[in-house]
Amino acid sequence: MELKDYIYVEEDFPKKGISFKDISPLVENPEAFAYSIGKMKEIAERWDVDIIVGPESRGFIFGTPLAYAMGKGFLMARKAGKLPGKKLSITYDLEYGQATLEIPSSAIQQGTRVLIVDDLLATGGTITALETLLENAGAKVVGVITLIELTDLNGKSAFKAPFEALIRYPH
Amino acid sequence: MELKDYIYVEEDFPKKGISFKDISPLVENPEAFAYSIGKMKEIAERWDVDIIVGPESRGFIFGTPLAYAMGKGFLMARKAGKLPGKKLSITYDLEYGQATLEIPSSAIQQGTRVLIVDDLLATGGTITALETLLENAGAKVVGVITLIELTDLNGKSAFKAPFEALIRYPH
Repeated sequence: MELKDYIYVEEDFPKKGISFKDISPLVENPEAFAYSIGKMKEIAERWDVDIIVGPESRGFIFGTPLAYAMGKGFLMARKAGKLPGKKLSITYDLEYGQATLEIPSSAIQQGTRVLIVDDLLATGGTITALETLLENAGAKVVGVITLIELTDLNGKSAFKAPFEALIRYPH
Repeated sequence: MELKDYIYVEEDFPKKGISFKDISPLVENPEAFAYSIGKMKEIAERWDVDIIVGPESRGFIFGTPLAYAMGKGFLMARKAGKLPGKKLSITYDLEYGQATLEIPSSAIQQGTRVLIVDDLLATGGTITALETLLENAGAKVVGVITLIELTDLNGKSAFKAPFEALIRYPH
């Protein structure tokens, strides 16, 4: 199956110079969606995963069905202010401004083996911050999987954990 | 399995008088998460579903694994400005201010049988707006499932479609 057939590319969205990769057609198609989850599961099974983590909100799209398919739990890394109770957080730089991710402080024990899943790897700022947050909580990040990698941006260079993507575009 | 054992209730979050239901412990627990998806699947199979729709972002948490488990696709109903291309949108009132949901205009054909999934039913504003948006696009909304229902708020009274929840709290 050629997964790129199910990605809709819109040039200059959300602003000039960005070639936006819309995953909607892939997620809407039962065969392409199930095939993608199956491929992610094949990769993840190499890494002895305890729990899957994905950043809000598109990390939920592939992370929760992958967790279900593997018989694992899923940890939501949420945007600031959404989680009650004791939590761990990290603030990181975006192209303009900053963003914060939070996880419940009880979610990770020392040595928990975590897989990070997201829809797309661009510069890698969000995933690198999440890797640091999880390590600060005591986790071992055993791998990172995204549906799409924008290879020219080389976002994976900042990851400590091994990385795999199912679809690659230059940018 | 008593699913309420996996819901963390925090009083007065995010503000005074709100009894917040945090689904994080349930989603993190492999057995409770898989059990919840299995129960939703049992309900959904009564309704002859073509595609599952969930509102950003917590609708993704149960909607995508349910779609995967049923061999269906998933349609993301996104917040304003996130989707490229031609789209359909609806703006609706919240307690303070307004919110907008958008779907790609190509996602729904006339008569497509849609199941709406979300984490929690409170006043029902988001789901009612989504039901209207989908019907305007030509869909038949065959059912609504949430993990949690806050029964005192009677949010389901505005739905045309049948409604089921796995867990109930008064408020």
